[in-house]
This record gives sequence, structure tokens and C-alpha cells, in this order.
Amino acid sequence: MENTTLTRPLVSSSEFLDYWQGHRKLTRRVIEAFPEKEFFEFSIGGMRSFFALTKELLAIASPGLKEIVTGENHAFNDDFAGVSTKAQVLELWDKATEEINQYWQQIPADKFHENNNLFGQYDFPVIQNIFYFVDNEIHHRGQGYVYLRALGIEPPYFWER
Amino acid sequence: MENTTLTRPLVSSSEFLDYWQGHRKLTRRVIEAFPEKEFFEFSIGGMRSFFALTKELLAIASPGLKEIVTGENHAFNDDFAGVSTKAQVLELWDKATEEINQYWQQIPADKFHENNNLFGQYDFPVIQNIFYFVDNEIHHRGQGYVYLRALGIEPPYFWER
Repeated sequence: MENTTLTRPLVSSSEFLDYWQGHRKLTRRVIEAFPEKEFFEFSIGGMRSFFALTKELLAIASPGLKEIVTGENHAFNDDFAGVSTKAQVLELWDKATEEINQYWQQIPADKFHENNNLFGQYDFPVIQNIFYFVDNEIHHRGQGYVYLRALGIEPPYFWER
Repeated sequence: MENTTLTRPLVSSSEFLDYWQGHRKLTRRVIEAFPEKEFFEFSIGGMRSFFALTKELLAIASPGLKEIVTGENHAFNDDFAGVSTKAQVLELWDKATEEINQYWQQIPADKFHENNNLFGQYDFPVIQNIFYFVDNEIHHRGQGYVYLRALGIEPPYFWER
């Protein structure tokens, strides 16, 4: 047996889930910080509204994790037809939080190194899928911070999770 | 021996280094994408210039990792007096890339779960220090993307690393 298998892992599965959900809590605070109208309409330099960015995050996190658990890949879909208020978005956010907690427990440890063809398009190891979920959220949330600052609104502290 | 120690870790130390350096490559491309003047001067909503944000990243990554390796904590310092061109910043960036590769190899596996009082101020497990290094970079780089868009410049693809 190699010595590396005897050392404690860099990060455990449950630590990673806490890390991810901590980020999702902060993103939820950013959604809350937007005024209703600006959440759906405000943008800079031709970029998407924070609503559109949030729909992307919702379309990735829980559906992406479901693929990893079930092994069934589906096309990416961020339609969310009929969603037109921040309250509805926050409800979807909280529903995804629960789903992520449920799915996470169903990932066997060795699965993280198997490939998943995310949304039938991006064939990479599961751990890379999941790092992408978090990175993409931090990236777009950082953009939301600029929108808030441009609107004269103080965003939540980055380390507040 | 617990069964968990026999499973392959979620992410190995060398995979994490690749992931981090991949992000740093992308941030380097974002620095390059800024026009010289705008890199130092442009901002939105009273935020810092991308130069100021980049100095923060430079003050964290290699110096933070050095603390973890040496066990010696120093005050955070993002002065970089005398640095006034993008070329100088990119040189510092590349120097940090090498330093990070060197320091990384000197972190014993068990160290990731010990505490480090980062910059004498933030006393958390090393793995949380390091996740913070990457998260903070993605966060500020996302802000740089908005600056570029506001300047009418297409940023590099997010998945280009």
C-alpha cells in the first residue's frame, strides 16, 4: 500500500460540501441585496442581469449533481419559465440547497475520479465538474458585487458564509 | 484502520496545485487583456482598480504559502512600491508562480489540517487558508471581467486555463 493512502485527505467530502454550501449562502445574500427591479434588469457592458446569472447557477448546481448521482445526462436548461420575482428565485435557491445535501450523500468516494459528461457536453472527472460548479458561482457572484457597487449598494462581506 | 483512509482522496495535493495554477494562468490573461492606463485607473462604483486587486492577489498567494511552509507569520503587505507598469506586474506574477510551485512541494500532507494564523490575523486550518487564496482570486477576477466588458473588451473564456 502506498504511503499516500495513509495520510488524511487534503479535504474530506463533508468539508467540501460545507465549503460549497457556505458559498451558496453568500450568493443567497447577494441575491437578497439587489432591489427587486435591478435584480432582473440591471447590467453593465452588455452583460447578463444578476437574475440571468442566478438562473445559470440554479441550472448547474442541483441538476449537475443529480447527473453525477444518477449517471443520466440531460441538456443544460436555465429556462425557469414563470419565475419573475426575487421571492420565487430564493425559494428555488433553498430547494436546491436541500437537493444538494441529499444528492451529495449519494456520491460514493471513488466516483469523484470517474468521468461525467456534464449536460451531455463536458466530459471531465466528477471532481472537476464540482470544482467548476463552485468556481463559476464565485465568478458570477463577483460580477454581482460590481453591479451592487455600481448601484450604490454595499455587498455582503466576502467571508460572511 | 478506517475504511475512509483506503479510498482515493477527493482531490490530491498535486491536482489541487494544478487547479490553482490553472486559475492563476487565467488571471494572468485578464491582466494582459487590460489596456495599460485602464489597468491602473479604471474602476466602477468606487471600487479598486484591477491593479489594486492584483496587488492584493500577489500579496496573498506566495507570501501566504510561505507562511504555511515556514510557520512564520508576517503582516499583510500589498505595497509593491515602484511597480507602475503591467510588464512589472506580470513579472511579479510569474515569479510568484515559481515560488508557489516550490513552496507547495514543501507542505507535508498532514499540515493541511493544522491551523495557520494567516498574516497574523486569520487563524484557520491551512486548507481553509488555501481555498481562500483561490476563491478570493476568482472573486476579484470576476470583477475584472466586468471592468473589461465596461471598457468594451472581450475577456478570456472562463474555462481557458
